[in-house]
Amino acid sequence: MVDRVYNFSPGPATLPVEVLEQASKDVVNFKETGIGLIEMSHRSKEFMAVADETEALLRELMEIPDNYKVLFLQGGASSQFFMIPMNLLGDGKKATYLNTGTWSKKAIKEAKLFGDIDVAFSSEETSFNRVPAVDEYNVADDSEFLYFVSNNTIYGTQFPGFPNTDKMLVSDMSSDILSRKIDVTKFGLIFAGAQKNMGPAGVTVVIIREDLLERTPENTPTMLCYKTHADKGSMFNTPPCFAIYAVGEVLKWLKKQGGVAKMEEINKEKAGLLYQAIDSTDFYRGHAETASRSLMNVTFNLPTPELETEFIAKAAEIGLNGLKGHRSIGGCRASIYNAFPREGVVKLVEFMKAFEASHTD
Amino acid sequence: MVDRVYNFSPGPATLPVEVLEQASKDVVNFKETGIGLIEMSHRSKEFMAVADETEALLRELMEIPDNYKVLFLQGGASSQFFMIPMNLLGDGKKATYLNTGTWSKKAIKEAKLFGDIDVAFSSEETSFNRVPAVDEYNVADDSEFLYFVSNNTIYGTQFPGFPNTDKMLVSDMSSDILSRKIDVTKFGLIFAGAQKNMGPAGVTVVIIREDLLERTPENTPTMLCYKTHADKGSMFNTPPCFAIYAVGEVLKWLKKQGGVAKMEEINKEKAGLLYQAIDSTDFYRGHAETASRSLMNVTFNLPTPELETEFIAKAAEIGLNGLKGHRSIGGCRASIYNAFPREGVVKLVEFMKAFEASHTD
Repeated sequence: MVDRVYNFSPGPATLPVEVLEQASKDVVNFKETGIGLIEMSHRSKEFMAVADETEALLRELMEIPDNYKVLFLQGGASSQFFMIPMNLLGDGKKATYLNTGTWSKKAIKEAKLFGDIDVAFSSEETSFNRVPAVDEYNVADDSEFLYFVSNNTIYGTQFPGFPNTDKMLVSDMSSDILSRKIDVTKFGLIFAGAQKNMGPAGVTVVIIREDLLERTPENTPTMLCYKTHADKGSMFNTPPCFAIYAVGEVLKWLKKQGGVAKMEEINKEKAGLLYQAIDSTDFYRGHAETASRSLMNVTFNLPTPELETEFIAKAAEIGLNGLKGHRSIGGCRASIYNAFPREGVVKLVEFMKAFEASHTD
Repeated sequence: MVDRVYNFSPGPATLPVEVLEQASKDVVNFKETGIGLIEMSHRSKEFMAVADETEALLRELMEIPDNYKVLFLQGGASSQFFMIPMNLLGDGKKATYLNTGTWSKKAIKEAKLFGDIDVAFSSEETSFNRVPAVDEYNVADDSEFLYFVSNNTIYGTQFPGFPNTDKMLVSDMSSDILSRKIDVTKFGLIFAGAQKNMGPAGVTVVIIREDLLERTPENTPTMLCYKTHADKGSMFNTPPCFAIYAVGEVLKWLKKQGGVAKMEEINKEKAGLLYQAIDSTDFYRGHAETASRSLMNVTFNLPTPELETEFIAKAAEIGLNGLKGHRSIGGCRASIYNAFPREGVVKLVEFMKAFEASHTD
């Protein structure tokens, strides 16, 4: 058993120790084949079984209907910013975007290369400290879809519920996929980079409604068509085998914990401990508006930037790592995805109280 | 020490056992940080050092001049098929391609979406059993570059020397990068998926001359511009951390073996043993013409497909795995990249002799 620290990194983020220990074995010798997982043909029956099981587990845990394809792609969530409008918007077609942070802003920039993009809401003027209420924006009748970022890693905001519209939803769930129950049927497309809540960096999951595969304009490069990957079970070319395998191991772990509903319960309780600590004093101030608070990334400030620097350094000394906020807003951020242990949250709350006590009279 | 088999897989392919054993440790706890490599922030000083060292080693081993950028990208070599013409060819510009196998054919298909593509040579009619001699094709004066696949994994052919032209060369070296000394200054761009000769699947190395970064047309999606990645040291978005790390470990191993020149010597000797075995009898027939033979993938046939099936199965029984040829040409293929041990080649030669003896009078 290794001596672990509590790793509050926003991503790549902490993984269950049992997943790491299994990977440690499989990397060298996968299922006693005499071949390590990372040197094994992606067409071998052993690896095909890994890929199949990973997809099946994701379908089961997220209750993904049969008319959706699950793709394991490369290129990061950032590549979805252009692939979505490239595949789903024809020339001149419209889509509606909600601008709730850095990642939606980047997605909007790429989407504008392909279609008529209507930004129906933005909280940029208040440092993206909130997401909109359901009645705070309109989705145009001629809009193809409504795009939103389910959880904003940098600002620590999260949609408490999903937009209420008849339009198809498209969502970047990179930082909260599998953290709560969702109704996939409301979505045309869901995507998530694995490295926050699902596995290591190197694979992006795309869940896409089958009929949308036919929308891609002709003359789109083969590798950029969703259909290319859907038709070949994500094996049109060599997939990122290790990352897919590791996602599968995380999903096995998640199932053992009780699945997504149980995880949602745990996440609420874990985040609650931290928000309670923040709310119980004026020493700490949350960045996000209360109604928009994220269960995954808890952002907060101390009275001065100097105190924040000291807080982050002292925390690291006792094994609470990665609490520095993103450079775009500063402050502190505790990323507490599914795999982050409750004990680490408790330890952080204790540290927060002790730090405050030693810096006030 | 694990009980290894000899893995002749064409890719993902066998890796040095010391690399696997190091990865096994680092995945769980990287350099005693209490954080596994696969859950560590890509912005951490520990991972930044890994990425820097990997790049530095590649530059050293390949003698890459300072006016070239080294990128670690996702999307596989297949994504380079369109990224190269998308970035390097403006509307209507011309490029020359040599069609020597499946991968060049796919690259030509994508390139035609972006420019005027002149296919100056094709060996398709003879099942891609050879590459052209230097005087066998012309490169048009108005061509921007000459594109070729240095080694053809499926057919077992390889350019013994490089095309002799004043035009800039662009090459897919996915299956023979680091297997022999090359003069990088002749190339505008070299790319290689890692999973054959450099590491696990999930990262593609692109070596690009700096001035070419300025050629990309406006309105190209951010993630598809080489400059995006060059400007940010391949950290514009979260990189495939584990694959980059593993490439670094393979490069350390390669350096310890004596570097690329030494590897070239070993590869010649290793492949020589197999070709000698093939040439010494009529029972085995090589697929590639002698002058085009690959040192990386040795393709051969037996008298009948039935004998080939039996050969592959019996070989697997004694720990010689992955000898089945690609479905497009059938037969047998022994992929013997840098990390494939000489003892495995010797064992295969012995088996070939025994198999022949037991099937002839």
